[in-house]
Amino acid sequence: MRRFVIGSARNLIESSRQKYQFERSILSSPYRFLSSSPAADSPSSSSSSSSSTMAHPVSLNTINPKVIECEYAVRGEIVTLAQKLQEEIQTKPDAHPFEEQCHADIILPFVNDGFCKGLLQLQYYKETSYVGILYCNIGNPQSLGQQPITFFREVLALCDHPAILDKSETQGLFSADSIERAWQILDQIPGRATGAYSHSQGIKGLRDTIAAGIEARDGFPADPNDIFLTDGASPAVHMMMQLLIRSEKDGILCPIPQYPLYSASIALHGGTLVPYYLDEATGWGLEVSELKKQLETSRSKGITVRALVVINPGNPTGQVLAEENQKAIVEFCKQEGLVLLADEVYQENVYVPEKKFHSFKKVSRSMGYGEKDIAVVSFQSVSKGYYGECGKRGGYMEVTGFGADVREQIYKVASVNLCSNISGQILASLVMSPPKVGDESYESYSAERDGILSSLARRAKTLEDAFNKLEGVTCNKAEGAMYLFPRIDLPEKAIKAAEAAKKAPDAYYCQRLLAATGIVFVPGSGFRQVPGTWHFRCTILPQEEKIPAIVTRLTDFHKSFMDEFRG
Amino acid sequence: MRRFVIGSARNLIESSRQKYQFERSILSSPYRFLSSSPAADSPSSSSSSSSSTMAHPVSLNTINPKVIECEYAVRGEIVTLAQKLQEEIQTKPDAHPFEEQCHADIILPFVNDGFCKGLLQLQYYKETSYVGILYCNIGNPQSLGQQPITFFREVLALCDHPAILDKSETQGLFSADSIERAWQILDQIPGRATGAYSHSQGIKGLRDTIAAGIEARDGFPADPNDIFLTDGASPAVHMMMQLLIRSEKDGILCPIPQYPLYSASIALHGGTLVPYYLDEATGWGLEVSELKKQLETSRSKGITVRALVVINPGNPTGQVLAEENQKAIVEFCKQEGLVLLADEVYQENVYVPEKKFHSFKKVSRSMGYGEKDIAVVSFQSVSKGYYGECGKRGGYMEVTGFGADVREQIYKVASVNLCSNISGQILASLVMSPPKVGDESYESYSAERDGILSSLARRAKTLEDAFNKLEGVTCNKAEGAMYLFPRIDLPEKAIKAAEAAKKAPDAYYCQRLLAATGIVFVPGSGFRQVPGTWHFRCTILPQEEKIPAIVTRLTDFHKSFMDEFRG
Repeated sequence: MRRFVIGSARNLIESSRQKYQFERSILSSPYRFLSSSPAADSPSSSSSSSSSTMAHPVSLNTINPKVIECEYAVRGEIVTLAQKLQEEIQTKPDAHPFEEQCHADIILPFVNDGFCKGLLQLQYYKETSYVGILYCNIGNPQSLGQQPITFFREVLALCDHPAILDKSETQGLFSADSIERAWQILDQIPGRATGAYSHSQGIKGLRDTIAAGIEARDGFPADPNDIFLTDGASPAVHMMMQLLIRSEKDGILCPIPQYPLYSASIALHGGTLVPYYLDEATGWGLEVSELKKQLETSRSKGITVRALVVINPGNPTGQVLAEENQKAIVEFCKQEGLVLLADEVYQENVYVPEKKFHSFKKVSRSMGYGEKDIAVVSFQSVSKGYYGECGKRGGYMEVTGFGADVREQIYKVASVNLCSNISGQILASLVMSPPKVGDESYESYSAERDGILSSLARRAKTLEDAFNKLEGVTCNKAEGAMYLFPRIDLPEKAIKAAEAAKKAPDAYYCQRLLAATGIVFVPGSGFRQVPGTWHFRCTILPQEEKIPAIVTRLTDFHKSFMDEFRG
Repeated sequence: MRRFVIGSARNLIESSRQKYQFERSILSSPYRFLSSSPAADSPSSSSSSSSSTMAHPVSLNTINPKVIECEYAVRGEIVTLAQKLQEEIQTKPDAHPFEEQCHADIILPFVNDGFCKGLLQLQYYKETSYVGILYCNIGNPQSLGQQPITFFREVLALCDHPAILDKSETQGLFSADSIERAWQILDQIPGRATGAYSHSQGIKGLRDTIAAGIEARDGFPADPNDIFLTDGASPAVHMMMQLLIRSEKDGILCPIPQYPLYSASIALHGGTLVPYYLDEATGWGLEVSELKKQLETSRSKGITVRALVVINPGNPTGQVLAEENQKAIVEFCKQEGLVLLADEVYQENVYVPEKKFHSFKKVSRSMGYGEKDIAVVSFQSVSKGYYGECGKRGGYMEVTGFGADVREQIYKVASVNLCSNISGQILASLVMSPPKVGDESYESYSAERDGILSSLARRAKTLEDAFNKLEGVTCNKAEGAMYLFPRIDLPEKAIKAAEAAKKAPDAYYCQRLLAATGIVFVPGSGFRQVPGTWHFRCTILPQEEKIPAIVTRLTDFHKSFMDEFRG
């Protein structure tokens, strides 16, 4: 350990010399999407030379322009740069100020040069090549060390390999209720065949379980035939965009700032994003007057608005809508004949006692509106909540208020991809029907769940406070979801430097932050924002013990950045 | 057992009286896509009344017409009818001639009325509600009783619940090499987090394994950065169509008959399917002269042909291309500047010693063509082969011959959906690197694999022979894949009866077959065919011991059908 610490100190001193050179190089690199070991950078790679030396039948000029228009910031330029950086760390371990390969539970309190006053708690997983970069760009909890819920994984493992279900050793390895649940689930699958394509909407018995979970959550009936299980929520959103968008004359009302899946999906399907602005001054409030204004403006331009997207709890903004506000939104959709696309994937992520999640379907039913009155599509995912099972790609949409003929078309489109993955389907049923009081796993399950949720609430608060202490930064309360979206007032000189570097000012800030600290935030411009304002999105997902080091490092970077550009 | 048999006999006699009535009702039902308990048929269901009583903001007239145009026969009308039938069997167990609830390993050799001379070996899984219908419509092996490969499932279970990896009980439950492999895979995943989103193309270490598998298969280098892991092959096909199709003026050359994913995907993305006909007379031969003819015809109509789809081994036709033929196809694509979209998901399913699978990339490399010369995209899936893991939704495409700039666009589109499911990714790596000689699991693994493949070969031959014995039916040899696509010459009176029922003649035949026997074939019209010819697709997947009963029942039905309509 001593040798390690001394080595670390030496590397830090050396690397600080190389920092500015690197920072220049990363900031001047052209905007590109790269694979993890990008072809164009390795002469030996097969793809490198093709586009330059021949008139290729497929070029940027001849592919679908909708693909080119589509942008997806949370995995865009900043992440590409981070991946490049991570590769450089691996190949040239002395090149950067934050490349120390320490174990995840060690914090090195070095203050050893003008730049590195804080030290990032670096990511290093024994026996892996994952070092250095701290990805706060995406809601990916388990990539940052969050552990899966044991009960869910027990059931998944047993359903993957049912041959062990009746072996005696299994009793010693798995909880009794996980074994029982696995049997129940297998019995819901025709032939117990977890390796078979299911019904295009998902296994009927699992949809029954999910519908029962929705009923228990909302207090209103849910129909298993309204559930379409999908590989995460994203394909469900695409499916609805594909259904609703006929041409660029069809518009979808989307919040600004928005989760870029929506802008990307609307672009890919050739529609028009009709923006409505959330009001940062009132905690990212959603005003129906703003919806009306934008609807009318777009109608006057000949746009037929088909649907309203609401993300609740908000992404990237973290606000949780009040029920009265939701009622006004439902009324607006009903009056205007809009489909309400309710992104409710953060329904379990509410951190403040004064707010509660209400599904839009529940709100509309509580207003007396039924199937005939309003079309509501609710998206849910296993990637969020306290479980954060992003890699399992499970999710569903609950489709209500469409005629049977349109429903058949949705079913047909679902059929073209056959079905979503069965493990994801099983997990979607589990998150909607977790262990209950009295089940063997209940105590450990609820301890895991509550531990994660209360920790997320503390992390949100700590980061929110830290952002609000930074010069020129204001940050609304994170009531829910997994993000903070602070606003940053950048000095005029920084904006000019960004212009010179051909970057948006917030992108410039985020790239400087990355180069200096290894922390990956997504610039607000990736989510869209009120013109002339600048933001960034930061997840609240780094493990709690790492937050102080992040805050220190961020604070120090920010001070040095502001000092550099102060007028 | 005796009581069961007597009960069965009584039911059979009773049900034969009800058959004709049912058959009429099923044949006159309008064409509809249904969910498993369709809203429009159950008054209590929430969706039933919406479309009729209000001017809905979303109707068939206002949705994306591309969605309406898209067709997907393998889960289309015939499957909808089968599902309806299955529901009726469950609610009214005496209603149909084939609803007997027998155990899967019992064949009842009844010959007890004019209609039911054979008896379908029916599907009944203890403690499930799955009875009656025999789905030969889709390549879904495990739904028909094929067991998963033990080693693959062991590894998946261990990766799902790594907490048990170092428990002593685990040694007793899992093979040593599955434990070792699970450790290897976990070490390839950053943070060992199987619940995290991966790199948008899939986990790098798994792509390394897949690339090594491709190299071992082909004898030419493969680059892990060319691999895009996807949720089965279908999303990969969609991704390429999305990239290549700009408007209806862009065409994709597709074989006829074709797997309807292609026609569906081209329709959804708004392109034009340019058909080329496989020559049934020469065993579904693929003639380059036909490709040229169709290319020129479509060009003369102003269509820009972007790509050629080749399915090898063929679906629905089962032919395996000869290497010389593949070379001519590669040369054609190179000369004409077409992307070669090679559907190679049946690469492990070759049943005749005189044929061997060669990947199109291998063939093009063996001709001396590299990245600069030709763009080849190879699709592979975990759903086919001897593993048949359809429910896991794993697969990949190997993308070669595109410029770096276009590759970045493909990466961006992959990013919008974040990543494919990790279990599917792991499985894709496993099928490309199964146990090797000397591994603990090798013997059981290879016995399972060889058992499945040799049985499939026998089943293909038995069904092929049976079809060729039917009056008016001819069936080419199934060299590979999972299907037979027999041609049926229907009597003029049957064609007229189909016209009266507003059905294509082959659809009419398949619906009559379903109503009489519970066997689900897909009519050839769903795959397209030479106009005026009629076919159906039948999978070779029912378990081997059930094949004789299927043959008997089919033969009896066919005879009675032909007798009914003989001129």
